[in-house]
Amino acid sequence: MNFKTVINIIGIILVILSIFMTIPILVSIINHSQDTLALALSCFITFFCGTVMITLTKQYRHEELMYREAFMTVTLTWITVAFFGCLPYIFTGSVNSFTDAFFESMSGFTTTGSSIFVDVESLPAGLLFWRSMTQWIGGMGIIVFVLAVLPIMGIGGMQLFKAEVPEISVDKLRPRIIDTAKALWIIYIGITGIIIFLYYIAGMDLYDAFCHAFTTISTGGFSTKNASIAHFKNPALEYISCFGMFLGGINFALYFYLLKGNYKRLLKNAEFKFYFSVILVTICLLTIDLIPYYPSLSESFRYSIFQVISIMTTTGYATADYLKWSSFSQLTLLIIMFFGGMIGSTAGGLKQVRVYLMIKQISREFYQLVHPKAVLSLKLDDKFLNKELLGSIWGFVFLAIFVCALASIAMTATGLDLITSFSTVISSMNNVGPALGEAGPASNYSSIPAPGKWILIFCMLAGRLEYYTVLIVLTPAFWKR
Amino acid sequence: MNFKTVINIIGIILVILSIFMTIPILVSIINHSQDTLALALSCFITFFCGTVMITLTKQYRHEELMYREAFMTVTLTWITVAFFGCLPYIFTGSVNSFTDAFFESMSGFTTTGSSIFVDVESLPAGLLFWRSMTQWIGGMGIIVFVLAVLPIMGIGGMQLFKAEVPEISVDKLRPRIIDTAKALWIIYIGITGIIIFLYYIAGMDLYDAFCHAFTTISTGGFSTKNASIAHFKNPALEYISCFGMFLGGINFALYFYLLKGNYKRLLKNAEFKFYFSVILVTICLLTIDLIPYYPSLSESFRYSIFQVISIMTTTGYATADYLKWSSFSQLTLLIIMFFGGMIGSTAGGLKQVRVYLMIKQISREFYQLVHPKAVLSLKLDDKFLNKELLGSIWGFVFLAIFVCALASIAMTATGLDLITSFSTVISSMNNVGPALGEAGPASNYSSIPAPGKWILIFCMLAGRLEYYTVLIVLTPAFWKR
Ligand SMILES: [K+]
Ligand SMILES: [K+]
Repeated sequence: MNFKTVINIIGIILVILSIFMTIPILVSIINHSQDTLALALSCFITFFCGTVMITLTKQYRHEELMYREAFMTVTLTWITVAFFGCLPYIFTGSVNSFTDAFFESMSGFTTTGSSIFVDVESLPAGLLFWRSMTQWIGGMGIIVFVLAVLPIMGIGGMQLFKAEVPEISVDKLRPRIIDTAKALWIIYIGITGIIIFLYYIAGMDLYDAFCHAFTTISTGGFSTKNASIAHFKNPALEYISCFGMFLGGINFALYFYLLKGNYKRLLKNAEFKFYFSVILVTICLLTIDLIPYYPSLSESFRYSIFQVISIMTTTGYATADYLKWSSFSQLTLLIIMFFGGMIGSTAGGLKQVRVYLMIKQISREFYQLVHPKAVLSLKLDDKFLNKELLGSIWGFVFLAIFVCALASIAMTATGLDLITSFSTVISSMNNVGPALGEAGPASNYSSIPAPGKWILIFCMLAGRLEYYTVLIVLTPAFWKR
Repeated sequence: MNFKTVINIIGIILVILSIFMTIPILVSIINHSQDTLALALSCFITFFCGTVMITLTKQYRHEELMYREAFMTVTLTWITVAFFGCLPYIFTGSVNSFTDAFFESMSGFTTTGSSIFVDVESLPAGLLFWRSMTQWIGGMGIIVFVLAVLPIMGIGGMQLFKAEVPEISVDKLRPRIIDTAKALWIIYIGITGIIIFLYYIAGMDLYDAFCHAFTTISTGGFSTKNASIAHFKNPALEYISCFGMFLGGINFALYFYLLKGNYKRLLKNAEFKFYFSVILVTICLLTIDLIPYYPSLSESFRYSIFQVISIMTTTGYATADYLKWSSFSQLTLLIIMFFGGMIGSTAGGLKQVRVYLMIKQISREFYQLVHPKAVLSLKLDDKFLNKELLGSIWGFVFLAIFVCALASIAMTATGLDLITSFSTVISSMNNVGPALGEAGPASNYSSIPAPGKWILIFCMLAGRLEYYTVLIVLTPAFWKR
């Protein structure tokens, strides 16, 4: 393991992080809030540490970054960024413990959106802006990780991006990580800008428009209001939010084709069609089921579409207390949490394409049973998927199931009840935010005991980095020469 | 579809069923209970219908039984047997509706053990004996189905039994279905006899010993007492029960080798080792976790071992109200429900070998990530498993997940709460019996609304017949020439 190369890269990322940190300082100054010094101190420490790390390891070149180092770098990057990103919470004195600060920061950078704050409106303006920004940075990070780094590592069927499926081939996204990252960055900033504009003209002030656009496109779900989007009581804002979350759940590689005017590529993409269909069907089901709960069909539609898109894209904004809904609606929401967004989006979950392929595998088996001599392969977008690739995808699904089971058991061991344990783990693994039980739609995790918070921090990180990236570091084979 | 051949076979099975029905008639006469006529009438109707079916279709030879007919026959057999097996409940007037009678009967023949009776002790002796016998017959049925019929059809990785793994090869169990069935039948009766003997010398009367031995070896879980095994307050009986359930969870093909004195075959069998290890680990965990709930460590062990074996072998007997246990213990029990017994046992669940292979697939992926150029295959008992076989196994697991999700949603649509919906579906699919919520350790399902009972009947049947057998009949491809 070439740790010095790893440290060098993380150093560079910390310097970039410190540059981002200057933005909330400006916001703090403009708003005359009390957190300017705390933010400046965090920014300075981050910059200083990053610079030291680069300086100490500058003789190491990135060409030495090998396969194993890549895993290590990604996992350590998220942990380190979450660590330095939590400094503003500590220096402003807004949290009671390091655990809480780290939980909030990790929840931000993994775009999960679980919060330990009971009253976010009491937080100073600069800090609150930074809180939203962590999700925006995390969302960008995950797109670059999935579309530019993962295909090289081959996790959980991510080889899909390598060559098999030309539509989402990395080659066409330009081969090198940095170039790909730059291109994605521009698209990401562009869409964020559009959402800020829409929020602003629909009635948010500029501050809220920025903060919510950050957490919409990143499907993060942090809000500047205790009541989340429900605070604004503005249907136009809610529909804009739905549109933004829907965009966040789309594979960002597809935006390249859209920019070139190639709309067919998007409409012929099997994963996109599946994603869109699942959303449509679920909205219809819930709209009907919610009729008894709301005065009109349009109200029922309004709350159904928002909650469905928010939960399925794993954003976690809320405009309704779904714990009061029927068990049918609750269970449906719980199940679509697992579907998540498309691969290459900012959303969490198993990802639509994996669920789609699982269903295809089931129907393939049915066909095989009726036609025992037929030799069948699974296809995606008219391309055959090889058995190794499928094995990776299935292994990924099983690993998610096992992490879910073990983490839930660990949560119950901290004394939490069954529903809270199980639902917070699912919510964290899938980077959703809100759960059931003690951590309902308000996504408030303050009552979870500290060991439970650390389990959930692990779940958020593992889920965000597609499990294998994080867990492989724990296997003996990884450390053998 | 050659329906006449299917009807002919079912006719034969009904005649056999009517012969079994003479036993509770004798029991009823000996005990001077009031149900003799009702049982005799059921027996006569079953015999008559069976004979008519055979007579009307006698020109059709079983050689005409093709691949598709096999699926149809198995599914229709279970449904028809459950239908005729429910006549005694109706004729004795013990139930309020046909739904309840069919539910109880299907719960019996699928060895699930969910019951609509609040007070089983008030049932007449003959009927209660028949209720236990339905599980015993169902247990035998499933062994013959899995070890003699399924390998030919190739469902969910059952090809394992065909030739790949010599240990459990059908060839060595004699190739033809009827011969295999006979040999398995003798082993099954032998083990049942041993359990009857042990129960009897440990203190049960002969009637209870028979009834409980029937439902122990079949991992069915019906009891003649409202309080299940807890009624007897006899640790010796509980440990005998544990031993019996453990035997029921073992692949019956392995008993052939044991009879030949080949103990090594058993001890080298990967699935058996996994099954045994999971039981041991879970018992240890729960024994420790339950220390605060019981006066001594031995008490904690006594209740832990019984509940763990009862739930994991999907029997569903209870000696403790585990709803009062910690959420850690409850969740652990809920998770091992999915593990079930070995393939070729009377137990339900996903089956140990599938869980074992899922874990192997996960670790294979980890190894592959560290060694990208290695070409790895999964092994079971030193034999490589081919990709098609693994695809079948994974398809099976995904189908179970989807049936679970859809059936749970359907249950919530009947107005049940989340926990009851989800846990009754899991319990029924895995053929366990008791669930959480409204259907706790007493396995009482009387409060479930009728549509919910029919959903659970479907789950029991689908789970028992390895999903594909039942669901394939619903696919268009099945009906195409
Ligand atoms: K989220
Ligand atoms: K059972």
